[in-house]
Amino acid sequence: MNDKIGARVWLNGAFVGFDQARMAIHDRGLSLGDGLFETMLWTGTTTAFLDAHLVRLRRSADALKIALPYSDAAIGAMLGELAQDAGGQRAVLRLTLTRGSGPRGLALPDDAEPSIMASLNTYRPNTLPVKLVRVSVLRNPSAPSCQHKTLSYIDNVMALAQAREQGGDDGLMYSTHGYAACATAANLIIKYRGKSLTSSLGDGAMAGIIRGQLLSAGLIEEATITAHMIEEASCAALTNAIIGVRAVQTIDARALVLDQSWLLDLRQILQS
Amino acid sequence: MNDKIGARVWLNGAFVGFDQARMAIHDRGLSLGDGLFETMLWTGTTTAFLDAHLVRLRRSADALKIALPYSDAAIGAMLGELAQDAGGQRAVLRLTLTRGSGPRGLALPDDAEPSIMASLNTYRPNTLPVKLVRVSVLRNPSAPSCQHKTLSYIDNVMALAQAREQGGDDGLMYSTHGYAACATAANLIIKYRGKSLTSSLGDGAMAGIIRGQLLSAGLIEEATITAHMIEEASCAALTNAIIGVRAVQTIDARALVLDQSWLLDLRQILQS
Repeated sequence: MNDKIGARVWLNGAFVGFDQARMAIHDRGLSLGDGLFETMLWTGTTTAFLDAHLVRLRRSADALKIALPYSDAAIGAMLGELAQDAGGQRAVLRLTLTRGSGPRGLALPDDAEPSIMASLNTYRPNTLPVKLVRVSVLRNPSAPSCQHKTLSYIDNVMALAQAREQGGDDGLMYSTHGYAACATAANLIIKYRGKSLTSSLGDGAMAGIIRGQLLSAGLIEEATITAHMIEEASCAALTNAIIGVRAVQTIDARALVLDQSWLLDLRQILQS
Repeated sequence: MNDKIGARVWLNGAFVGFDQARMAIHDRGLSLGDGLFETMLWTGTTTAFLDAHLVRLRRSADALKIALPYSDAAIGAMLGELAQDAGGQRAVLRLTLTRGSGPRGLALPDDAEPSIMASLNTYRPNTLPVKLVRVSVLRNPSAPSCQHKTLSYIDNVMALAQAREQGGDDGLMYSTHGYAACATAANLIIKYRGKSLTSSLGDGAMAGIIRGQLLSAGLIEEATITAHMIEEASCAALTNAIIGVRAVQTIDARALVLDQSWLLDLRQILQS
């Protein structure tokens, strides 16, 4: 089962048929979750916030010492070509970068050749307001898997599974420092005492693209968000590159206000 | 670059040529680090501690809700056949289980078919005493990536890279609770006030196979290990299924005693 659009993916510089697109089993992306990814919205005509996605990918690749062997222009052109298969409709582009193959063990290989691939996927966002439930899996701000959008995603996978078991749509993750951090694949914004706040990176938030745009536009500000503030927040939203800004209906069964004018205000940046 | 032995791997029930052994790029093992692995020592005649490895793998697969579609006997027979390529020499068997393919996103697919593969790799342990240095990446006991041997290994990969940059052979990882947990791919044992202690799982230790054997044999005991105890320890060792028991030479440049009789005592369980 998959939700790919079209019959091809892009793999290490060439478009290849979907069934031929395979990775060596000793690629460290598979064996150690040693790589990065970006998930981008194809609007029907363009890759939304492409520059911001590529800035984040390059920063993280530098931090993890993974080479990124294509220019931004080349990646942008490739994504635009791949997205032609969407026929002018919205779709989701996933770009994956791995460290490449190496001998067994954790040590960074001297001679690894990174693998990079892109696929086009169905856009099918759920736009209903979200039921958030607090989960026991914590975000670890000291960890590369928390600081970067790496392929090591099992913690968030299981955090979402836990939330679904508890009847929620998504999980509210706290950090090991004890503060609210984010949902399993989205940033959190709360309206608290009239201010629109999002968790700081040091408290375990991912440096989300929409979050970054909202911060730059001055529409939200970073804060340390306590459990008490979560209980007192009048409204809340989740953001990521695919859902944009999605309202939160409940947090641990407490109903929040669905403030449409607040949501519209935040969604301004999606039009730019 | 790889260090595979032989011309074949085992993939989903069949031996296939190494160059044909490839994974779909939408397999969640690759896209989300959503899977598990075991690294086992082939002694030349048998898979050391096979039962313990398979007990751990099954427990973790259950916890992560990944099906394991082969019996222990079938896996054991397959590993024994694969290891014939080692020609009676020591080698390393790696068994990898992924959740399989699914649509984009974190939600557990209803219809995922797990992938399982095994490869045979060169045995080339470094037996010199280890220089350990404390690293800033912390173990997160709340996280599935800490509780299970998952494919989401980037945190330990980068912890080792940090240790190497600091001139160490391996990194001493503390947990988010503030206690010593383990090295990047090995458990830690310290001799402290005459007792042989290893970090408890709740303090971020992985449930290592050699660690488990040593506990069962009563040769070590679990404890919460503080930074002060690390400073006061007279000697220390690292353990995992491949290195067995390896002496620690220094921790953050403080020299430890190389107590050969203590090490021999611990290594008893490797002969069983």
